[in-house]
Amino acid sequence: MLKNDFKITDASGYVGKEVVVKGWVRHIRSSGSLFFIEVRDGTGYIQSVVVKDDVSDEVFENCSKLKIEAALIVKGVIRKEKRAPGGFELGVSDIEIIHNPEEEYPISKKHHGVDFLLEHRHLWVRSSRQLAILRVRSELIRLLRSYFHENGYILIDTPIFTGSIGESAGTLFETEYFDFGKAYLAQTGQLYLEAAAAAFKKVFCFGPTFRAEKSKTRRHLTEFWMLEAEVAFYDSNQNMDLQEDMIHFVISSIVKNCEKELDYLKRDLAPLQRVKPPFPRISYDEAVEMLKKRAFTIDWGQDIGGDEETAISESFDKPVFIYNYPKEITAFYMKPNPEDNKTVLNNDLFAPEGYGEIIGGSQRNDEYNSLLDRIKEERLNPDTYRWYLDIRRYGSVPHSGFGLGIERLLAWICEVPHVRETIPFPRLINRLYP
Amino acid sequence: MLKNDFKITDASGYVGKEVVVKGWVRHIRSSGSLFFIEVRDGTGYIQSVVVKDDVSDEVFENCSKLKIEAALIVKGVIRKEKRAPGGFELGVSDIEIIHNPEEEYPISKKHHGVDFLLEHRHLWVRSSRQLAILRVRSELIRLLRSYFHENGYILIDTPIFTGSIGESAGTLFETEYFDFGKAYLAQTGQLYLEAAAAAFKKVFCFGPTFRAEKSKTRRHLTEFWMLEAEVAFYDSNQNMDLQEDMIHFVISSIVKNCEKELDYLKRDLAPLQRVKPPFPRISYDEAVEMLKKRAFTIDWGQDIGGDEETAISESFDKPVFIYNYPKEITAFYMKPNPEDNKTVLNNDLFAPEGYGEIIGGSQRNDEYNSLLDRIKEERLNPDTYRWYLDIRRYGSVPHSGFGLGIERLLAWICEVPHVRETIPFPRLINRLYP
Repeated sequence: MLKNDFKITDASGYVGKEVVVKGWVRHIRSSGSLFFIEVRDGTGYIQSVVVKDDVSDEVFENCSKLKIEAALIVKGVIRKEKRAPGGFELGVSDIEIIHNPEEEYPISKKHHGVDFLLEHRHLWVRSSRQLAILRVRSELIRLLRSYFHENGYILIDTPIFTGSIGESAGTLFETEYFDFGKAYLAQTGQLYLEAAAAAFKKVFCFGPTFRAEKSKTRRHLTEFWMLEAEVAFYDSNQNMDLQEDMIHFVISSIVKNCEKELDYLKRDLAPLQRVKPPFPRISYDEAVEMLKKRAFTIDWGQDIGGDEETAISESFDKPVFIYNYPKEITAFYMKPNPEDNKTVLNNDLFAPEGYGEIIGGSQRNDEYNSLLDRIKEERLNPDTYRWYLDIRRYGSVPHSGFGLGIERLLAWICEVPHVRETIPFPRLINRLYP
Repeated sequence: MLKNDFKITDASGYVGKEVVVKGWVRHIRSSGSLFFIEVRDGTGYIQSVVVKDDVSDEVFENCSKLKIEAALIVKGVIRKEKRAPGGFELGVSDIEIIHNPEEEYPISKKHHGVDFLLEHRHLWVRSSRQLAILRVRSELIRLLRSYFHENGYILIDTPIFTGSIGESAGTLFETEYFDFGKAYLAQTGQLYLEAAAAAFKKVFCFGPTFRAEKSKTRRHLTEFWMLEAEVAFYDSNQNMDLQEDMIHFVISSIVKNCEKELDYLKRDLAPLQRVKPPFPRISYDEAVEMLKKRAFTIDWGQDIGGDEETAISESFDKPVFIYNYPKEITAFYMKPNPEDNKTVLNNDLFAPEGYGEIIGGSQRNDEYNSLLDRIKEERLNPDTYRWYLDIRRYGSVPHSGFGLGIERLLAWICEVPHVRETIPFPRLINRLYP
């Protein structure tokens, strides 16, 4: 193992000891013969106290020149100090300045507009709120992956370049691909996961996904990360059981593992702590009735839009499943409902507190002929789907799966109003920089 | 927790017990009043013995019609049986046929050409060798991610769509991006990781990467997965220490965790067991002398190509670092060597046994003016790199990082001659299907 540097987050274990902190100036103020420098090192913050008599004249003099975000190596002794943020402070004996900016740091404590902040996203990520959100993201993804690995799933990285599209053709990014003409950027790894599920039974993928959708809402990115799972021999109900178990596992673990970050974000933990199975499961038919009673103008057969999503997810204090949507508004690969030929065996999962859809799942059509018919109905090229149809020719089994949008899940966990803060460098229809 | 189905790989714990196996027929043979059906369930294989008198007439009769890859649910009792592959067999009491193919399975035990296999990759992944390789891939990625999480790194998913390219402009895929004209598909997340390292100090990313390179070698894919790490306050030597520690951790763990798979692949474990720090570190200067002595025609200043890579990696029985390459053949973001202005502070890591380069790393140029000069020299648009230059304006620190190509690493671990077998659905200059 490599020797690790001292981390501010470990300060409580170093009381009375000399440490070296490598970091950046977050805030500085002076008071006569004292400087209080708040230093961040990526793991936390520590108040570093510079007393004129404890350091060389040069070091003390340099303190007055330090700018926000100056890079430093600070030597000192960790002390308990109730009044310091975090409960510890650093009694400084030496400071080496690695880089003191010539200019003022563009992001100050005053209010900045969101366009300014997005334009400076490369610096904005250094802010406490962004550090907290992105730490939760990192932990959320770790937890999701470990859930699947520990439950016997095999990670299958599905291709980005594809000729076989899984969602609507109108929202595809495309690129020239050598002698083949165009390749499309995958909107889902599902079709490929289905092939892998016939090999490994339980599989998952986790990668970036692309939608050239001209949607400018708080729930849309053009590039986002999606976790998808697929299980052979699972029906639609088992698929919902799996989603429920996974969401319960990650939310209960996040509440434990990200206590500090959620506290900083002032997240009310009660709604997260209520996320325990079973989640309510209501049919599309029931959902339409519910919306009608709440004065929405929705007819059976119409999709459940953003406002309706919000209304449904506000009606429950847990995530809620809506299942078996009308065939006309669902994807070609979903299995027709044997008990009602107008619907399919699918589900959405809505997060509570108005956050709306976070998961879409379904049992897949495992019958060759009826799948081929649907492909033709959608005016997709059957030749492109030869391989996908093959899964139905050789040992076809009932199988189900789902896709989870990480940014929407994270927005709910952190109670962030817009998904643009839930990914390090958001891509929106009007943003490609930085 | 969800109740899990029985898995063949757990058979040893179920001796004398009745189980239900859900899987597919790998092989079948009959012998008078017996059928031996080898069933695979994605976790392993079990010989299922059907005795005429133990099952209904219908079940016995159906056995004679079963085709390879038929999907079954088999009920029976697990027995110890030395002669059976794996040491256990299933004494069958009932079989439910879920799907019996009408056609013969296209992949048989005879030899198939690689084009045929790649064209049937969606079925080829069900073969034992491919199952083994992709299981090792899944475990390798789990181990790599856990190495970084456990060592305090934050996962930063870097964008795929970008205007700021990190490698050579000639090998970029591009796509129309709304009103912006073109966006490029990222060849590296490094530049973005550098911004994140100034926020979190230790960061990593892991995602698909794209190269429109017209290379048709055993080491090239147009789409591959890359792990990248970046650490603030690390110099080039610490960067190599990190790579060494990570490679040692994952290789020693793989040898333990993937014993069964590596055994199936007949992998000689000795070369993997020798992978212990320290790895030899030789300068580019020394490498050129070495190659000259071995009768390669290479002059100082030329890149180390495929054959030279092979020669170097065959000369050592451990991975070997080559460091400090000539400035002319390296990327604009690398830090000039303060002790030799003709070279930069970078490194490659070569796998042994002729597998060649698996890692490229460097200390990054952290000086605003000299970086800006290099950007201009490369005829890149400085305006696109404003944000990247900003990292050098506000708290610039020495920092280093690297990128590891998963498929090349996995090819070496599994001793696979061509990277096309190391990714579930390979994308090559002549392959976009399935």
